[in-house]
Amino acid sequence: MNLTFLRRPSGLQFGGVDVRQLAERAGRTPFFAYDRSAIDARIRELRNLLPAAISLHYSIKANPMPAVVHYLAARVDGFDVASAQEMALALDAGTRPLEIGFAGPGKSHDDLRRAVACGVHVHVESETQLRLVTAIGWDLGVRPNVAIRVNPDFKVTHSGMRMGGGPAPFGVDADQVPALLRELATREVSLAGFHIFWGSQCLHAATVIEAQQHSVELVLRLANGLAEPPRFVNLGGGFGIPYFPGEAPLEVKVVCEAMHGWMSRLREHLPATKPVLEFGRYLVGEAGIYVCRVIDRKVSRDKKFIVTDGGLHHHLAASGNFGQALRRNFPVVIGNRPEEVPSERCHVVGCLCTPLDRLADDIELPEVRIGDLVVVKQAGAYGRSASPLHFLSHPEPIEMLV
Amino acid sequence: MNLTFLRRPSGLQFGGVDVRQLAERAGRTPFFAYDRSAIDARIRELRNLLPAAISLHYSIKANPMPAVVHYLAARVDGFDVASAQEMALALDAGTRPLEIGFAGPGKSHDDLRRAVACGVHVHVESETQLRLVTAIGWDLGVRPNVAIRVNPDFKVTHSGMRMGGGPAPFGVDADQVPALLRELATREVSLAGFHIFWGSQCLHAATVIEAQQHSVELVLRLANGLAEPPRFVNLGGGFGIPYFPGEAPLEVKVVCEAMHGWMSRLREHLPATKPVLEFGRYLVGEAGIYVCRVIDRKVSRDKKFIVTDGGLHHHLAASGNFGQALRRNFPVVIGNRPEEVPSERCHVVGCLCTPLDRLADDIELPEVRIGDLVVVKQAGAYGRSASPLHFLSHPEPIEMLV
Repeated sequence: MNLTFLRRPSGLQFGGVDVRQLAERAGRTPFFAYDRSAIDARIRELRNLLPAAISLHYSIKANPMPAVVHYLAARVDGFDVASAQEMALALDAGTRPLEIGFAGPGKSHDDLRRAVACGVHVHVESETQLRLVTAIGWDLGVRPNVAIRVNPDFKVTHSGMRMGGGPAPFGVDADQVPALLRELATREVSLAGFHIFWGSQCLHAATVIEAQQHSVELVLRLANGLAEPPRFVNLGGGFGIPYFPGEAPLEVKVVCEAMHGWMSRLREHLPATKPVLEFGRYLVGEAGIYVCRVIDRKVSRDKKFIVTDGGLHHHLAASGNFGQALRRNFPVVIGNRPEEVPSERCHVVGCLCTPLDRLADDIELPEVRIGDLVVVKQAGAYGRSASPLHFLSHPEPIEMLV
Repeated sequence: MNLTFLRRPSGLQFGGVDVRQLAERAGRTPFFAYDRSAIDARIRELRNLLPAAISLHYSIKANPMPAVVHYLAARVDGFDVASAQEMALALDAGTRPLEIGFAGPGKSHDDLRRAVACGVHVHVESETQLRLVTAIGWDLGVRPNVAIRVNPDFKVTHSGMRMGGGPAPFGVDADQVPALLRELATREVSLAGFHIFWGSQCLHAATVIEAQQHSVELVLRLANGLAEPPRFVNLGGGFGIPYFPGEAPLEVKVVCEAMHGWMSRLREHLPATKPVLEFGRYLVGEAGIYVCRVIDRKVSRDKKFIVTDGGLHHHLAASGNFGQALRRNFPVVIGNRPEEVPSERCHVVGCLCTPLDRLADDIELPEVRIGDLVVVKQAGAYGRSASPLHFLSHPEPIEMLV
């Protein structure tokens, strides 16, 4: 039941619901809301563009809210997990273990034991991990399913966060993989696939295309001479979303069309190998908002400050304090008066006692009033879970899937 | 009972205990340990140097572990809190409400109501807060205790984090205070004091001295003409601790000696006004360590990576991703072999799937082995509570007071 608010201008509609109604549903501010229809639409759009043979995985790390994971379980072909707890979320959502890949440079013995016992694919990232997985398999009396995560030998230049091509703790350097494969052949483990992760948050189509092509060629080289072809090859993700003014969305159609080239190479040489692409931020990032309430406004030395009950403890990335070299504003609107034209220049800050706690610097907004709802867009990924929730011991934000 | 480990070299002693024993006490790694004797020594040292009339407050935000707060409750004269939950911690520790000051630019109605009801000093930072506090007092039938937090009209240049002198959401601009005082005089609230916070993490004695002198002169101006003198004046904190190579400790003795100057000014004009200094990081920051275990080591393209089970999800500041413009290494040692001379150059990373997760870049260490304990020093403040604990859904770190 979506309320229509009488005698008031229309609020921002999110998932078909007025954002003021969402605030009442949450019971308090601040809150994160994720729009299931937007997630669904994004997946359908991707499915339409992707070659049919491609398996579409969700990287739980982008947004581990259980309701989101359950919703996605029915819509994607598998999950990529980065911890035992993420693996548990994927299993709880009914995903088959062989559709789960567990990657991470620092898997503990406990992580590995749980993963081997559950039968998920362990993405082995070092000799140590191979040794431990073998020992655990022996101890449990099972044959572990492993993939090799490769630190690729090519470098892309336009990725938001480059994770391959140079020295890195992730995966096994491409040139060390043949030795690891020889080692692996002597162990009681099943080699199920390769995992090549070259970067993330890339908005440049040509870079994604090039990285995927290089990844496939790398896999063809690595798989050459294997007794059995790998069952899958995970070519990573990398699809970015625009956050800041001037950023254009990734041309996904162009990227997907180019996939037919490397798909045919793969089909020709490794016809039984299923290509997997993993998407995290790209599936959920634009489907989320962070909503906080204006609790004060003040003028200090001719600058206007809008003080909210939110802040960096809930959404560190939006404050600019998480990995960004240069702080830029996430898109921000006044949720209860989204149509009003900007009329004042102000700074929107959080409630914390630190100058780091900024939500929007020097931004044009309609005249902001106490009680207004400040909506930060593009907040569906790496929001709540990537923030220092206990910093200054304020209440945690509510989360809801709309 | 402190164990002596046989047949092994001595480990790092922390709080009189071998760090390997602490790891066994924790039951698992990673963990934070705080040394009560170091906290006690720091306070005794400060008490010896500070003029006797000064009240020494602890800012709970620096480390809100309940055991730490309880330990400090018996050793400081009051607490500064930044949220209703921090206030609850202070009250639970047995602190009298009038020894608690609640500051923060974004106090919610709920925060203010709880604070007024508990009788703590509400540090009013805007007209809105004054209006709300008055209304809440009226509603509850009590007279709220308030202080005015002032955004000072002087600027210091050497503070690590400057929080006054320019436009800011913190406090009321000094030139707006007289109008607020006139307004306040018409309300049923008790003005108990002033709170002037000019910055934090300052290592430069002359800057602290100058800021304190300016703060006192500002208070004398503001208090001039008040019917009753304020009961206290909180002159903020600002005492920093060294984190990085080349940083010298603050010359606290010099700072404390200079206090006699402004103390006599204060005594002369406001003899009934108690000066308060607040310390957070300075009391606990150097009394803490973060300990994680080496779970892998690998070479990637000629660089050595030491992979631990810790990371930025536990200690964001040490990773360099929290407000730092330029990443620098926190001090790091191998806890189980602290005496060994450095013999290899390596990168110490956390367990997370992100290139942001670095604990020490390009550092010289003894040859590191799997199982070694990596100890990050200066980890007693803004560690666990200022980190994104749920990022990638790994287990939380243990905390202990030793």
